[in-house]
Amino acid sequence: MRKSYQNLVEKLTEISRLNGVMNTITWDQEVMMPSGSAYARTGQIAALAGVIHERMTAPALGECLDELKICSDFNTVECCNIREASRQYDLMTKIPKRLVQTLAELSSRGHTIWVQARRENKFNDFSPVIQEFLLLKKEWASCAFPDISPYDANLDLFERGTTAAEISAIFDQLKTTLAPLIHEITHQTYQPDTAFLQGCFPIDKQAALARKISQDIGFQFDKGRMDVSVHPFCGGSDPTDVRITTRYSKDDFVESIYAAIHETGHALYEQGRKIESADLPVSESLTMGIHESQSLFWERMVAQSRAFCTHYFDSFCEFFSDKSQGITVDTFYQAINACKPDFIRVEADELTYPLHLILRFEIERDLFAGNISVNDLPELWNEKMLTYLGIRPPNDTLGVLQDSHWSSGAFGYFPSYTLGAIYACQFYFAMQRELPDVEQFIASGNFVPIKNWLNDKIHSQGKLYSPQELVVKITGEPLNPQHYLSYLEEKYRAIYRLNGL
Amino acid sequence: MRKSYQNLVEKLTEISRLNGVMNTITWDQEVMMPSGSAYARTGQIAALAGVIHERMTAPALGECLDELKICSDFNTVECCNIREASRQYDLMTKIPKRLVQTLAELSSRGHTIWVQARRENKFNDFSPVIQEFLLLKKEWASCAFPDISPYDANLDLFERGTTAAEISAIFDQLKTTLAPLIHEITHQTYQPDTAFLQGCFPIDKQAALARKISQDIGFQFDKGRMDVSVHPFCGGSDPTDVRITTRYSKDDFVESIYAAIHETGHALYEQGRKIESADLPVSESLTMGIHESQSLFWERMVAQSRAFCTHYFDSFCEFFSDKSQGITVDTFYQAINACKPDFIRVEADELTYPLHLILRFEIERDLFAGNISVNDLPELWNEKMLTYLGIRPPNDTLGVLQDSHWSSGAFGYFPSYTLGAIYACQFYFAMQRELPDVEQFIASGNFVPIKNWLNDKIHSQGKLYSPQELVVKITGEPLNPQHYLSYLEEKYRAIYRLNGL
Repeated sequence: MRKSYQNLVEKLTEISRLNGVMNTITWDQEVMMPSGSAYARTGQIAALAGVIHERMTAPALGECLDELKICSDFNTVECCNIREASRQYDLMTKIPKRLVQTLAELSSRGHTIWVQARRENKFNDFSPVIQEFLLLKKEWASCAFPDISPYDANLDLFERGTTAAEISAIFDQLKTTLAPLIHEITHQTYQPDTAFLQGCFPIDKQAALARKISQDIGFQFDKGRMDVSVHPFCGGSDPTDVRITTRYSKDDFVESIYAAIHETGHALYEQGRKIESADLPVSESLTMGIHESQSLFWERMVAQSRAFCTHYFDSFCEFFSDKSQGITVDTFYQAINACKPDFIRVEADELTYPLHLILRFEIERDLFAGNISVNDLPELWNEKMLTYLGIRPPNDTLGVLQDSHWSSGAFGYFPSYTLGAIYACQFYFAMQRELPDVEQFIASGNFVPIKNWLNDKIHSQGKLYSPQELVVKITGEPLNPQHYLSYLEEKYRAIYRLNGL
Repeated sequence: MRKSYQNLVEKLTEISRLNGVMNTITWDQEVMMPSGSAYARTGQIAALAGVIHERMTAPALGECLDELKICSDFNTVECCNIREASRQYDLMTKIPKRLVQTLAELSSRGHTIWVQARRENKFNDFSPVIQEFLLLKKEWASCAFPDISPYDANLDLFERGTTAAEISAIFDQLKTTLAPLIHEITHQTYQPDTAFLQGCFPIDKQAALARKISQDIGFQFDKGRMDVSVHPFCGGSDPTDVRITTRYSKDDFVESIYAAIHETGHALYEQGRKIESADLPVSESLTMGIHESQSLFWERMVAQSRAFCTHYFDSFCEFFSDKSQGITVDTFYQAINACKPDFIRVEADELTYPLHLILRFEIERDLFAGNISVNDLPELWNEKMLTYLGIRPPNDTLGVLQDSHWSSGAFGYFPSYTLGAIYACQFYFAMQRELPDVEQFIASGNFVPIKNWLNDKIHSQGKLYSPQELVVKITGEPLNPQHYLSYLEEKYRAIYRLNGL
């Protein structure tokens, strides 16, 4: 049995290393590859993907897992590796090859169609892609998770163990509180001064500040890189090789710095994984939602706090002296947290962001349930935007066509963003109970205790527990959106000078 | 038979694409990888190398080739693919796995030992590695090419079809002419003024000039990159993704610019390969010597010419105005071509460089023949340096320990550098017969006809012909070192004002 386990470890290690190679070449594709090489790179990625798929679905791996599953002679870490490898193997081998290929083909075709449809504001060109994906993703669900509803199966891929019913209950609470709050804020006379965030912020200074903050909060540059790409992301091939990107625009200093902090949050998770099991499932990040909780923990809970703004206000004044004349820490803090409903999700602020996701979740859920049809999406989208955020997109490019997710069939992905925000808040308050001085730490630029706490409680835990178990273990209770709601209400009522809670 | 050939094409394409992936991650390792990730990267490279080895030695590939070899129903390109794939398959499968592993292990261990031995000037620490490699490489030769002598077998890997006897004859000619010429130059009263090449050359300006020249002579930046690494090299994954590196030192402008030109020469070969067969052997570069002929063609024949110096003199004055006061084109040309015997091969000039290689070749040849023993190497090395270049290394760090090649068992590699120089010269004169205005083209910065000529005659020919066939096809005669000798004598006698030829 020991020998079989060793055999499993070897097979999983090979797969993990090949995946590490894949991550390096996909990073390279986004950050380094010459523009003329796209065609060749597609072939190279396909060849490597073929090898990885072959290894992940090898009958010998299945036999090895079958042997190990009937034995109980393993410790917690070993059990986790066997359990996770089995789940992965089952997921890979239960789906017919024809379906895998059809999905891959549609994903590639769908993306091209979406790019053009968005550019030309032609939803009808894109709607057949959604329609096809719906059918294929239902078929996929019936193969992958035959015992649960098709949408729950799609959710499970990103946030395992979480159902649409549970998410609906949580999101209904958010909606009920946040939509009226946003309405109040939008109609409030007092608005933060954001004028000093307009104008030109030289990119070399932005980049220097982004690197400084990333390093300050704990990113290890000897085990990672920070570069520029069209869309910010966190990639890399190993906990010792974590690569984040951001983008710079000379007239938007906040976006680039906070994107860098967001990706640093993801990166700290990856750099904090158990290094001795780096090539085994036990050390892998838990779910999309938990990953997002780490980026949002740093971006929202830490970096949008008054304490953080206090600490970095001097840097801001030093780097951008022409912008900081007459500005106080308080003005700075309020401007960073200004709330303004916008059509575009990726440009949304902390308070309006969840409503963008709730809207998408409701549409996906109702599509899978057959309660709405694809043709209704533009109108439904715009109606919900009006109800939740008080604005109505003037066209589909700024509405239903804005996100790429559906063009690749990534249904069930959106809720993780907001689950991540709720987790982040609940983790933060749990940490504050254990580290009551956390705000002073932040205000003095000492991020070590925070990073250590996250390393210990989350990053090093890998896949040992389910997200549901982990949140109870860390915070003493299941996921509870009430903390998140109280946090948002208190923070934004104060900033916007709205009457009591 | 058509189906078998299609099958072969698919297998070779997959291998080529996986090799493309390997080239990207090894480039990344040298240029981008964070320092803390070396251990993880080693594992990833080993995993991918294992897959590639498995594919290259797959019995199904052997069976496919066996079927195809007995059939004559193929065109030239197809025949080339079958021939080259068979050669490669035979080479990979004839060597016992144990020997492959022992060589790989010694190569890795040998490199570490060499680094330390060189640092500490301890040849005796390194000599057992050479001894072990000699035995293993002889065994390797008896498996790979049982019909030829062991050293010829090792040469064949880099310069197929060329024997030690042929190289000895050529190198004896060079030695007889060049050693006395270098002696004359060293003792000549007149020496070029190189003082203006001392001092500080800002690195951003060097980089801008290197990019400008590389682009001017034809490097396509949409199908490649230029970066910085410890040792300059040309890598990349495809003719549309060719990556060169150089290095900059603020007090050595000539080294960085000419390294960039050298690597651009390699890169033009790669970018000029037949794109429609990019993943098949027929499009691959021919041999090490022919590859080196392309880098030296640009570095020596073009960029060290008076015409080239004339064209770029204005750029030099513009980029480094503080250095160019009172300097003429002629001073510039002479300084670029200054000849000065040096202990270190990689820092050697055009004229002394071949002697460094001849010395290494003679030692390798005599080692394999058993005429000398490993323990004699330091003394032999120093004696030959004195005889050929008039200088005697004060220690082994500056002598026999300077190169990394033997630490990885790369015997037979060194002659290719000088064969490349001879090829380059012979190609240049052939080109000049077809393009009599070539010097005017260069002087006016028009490199298009030169690049087109090389694309047509060499780059696009891939592996269709042997190097011996190719040189006859292009120049009308076999490799003839007399052109190279005349070129060097004429050029350096003129620069150093030595009496007649």
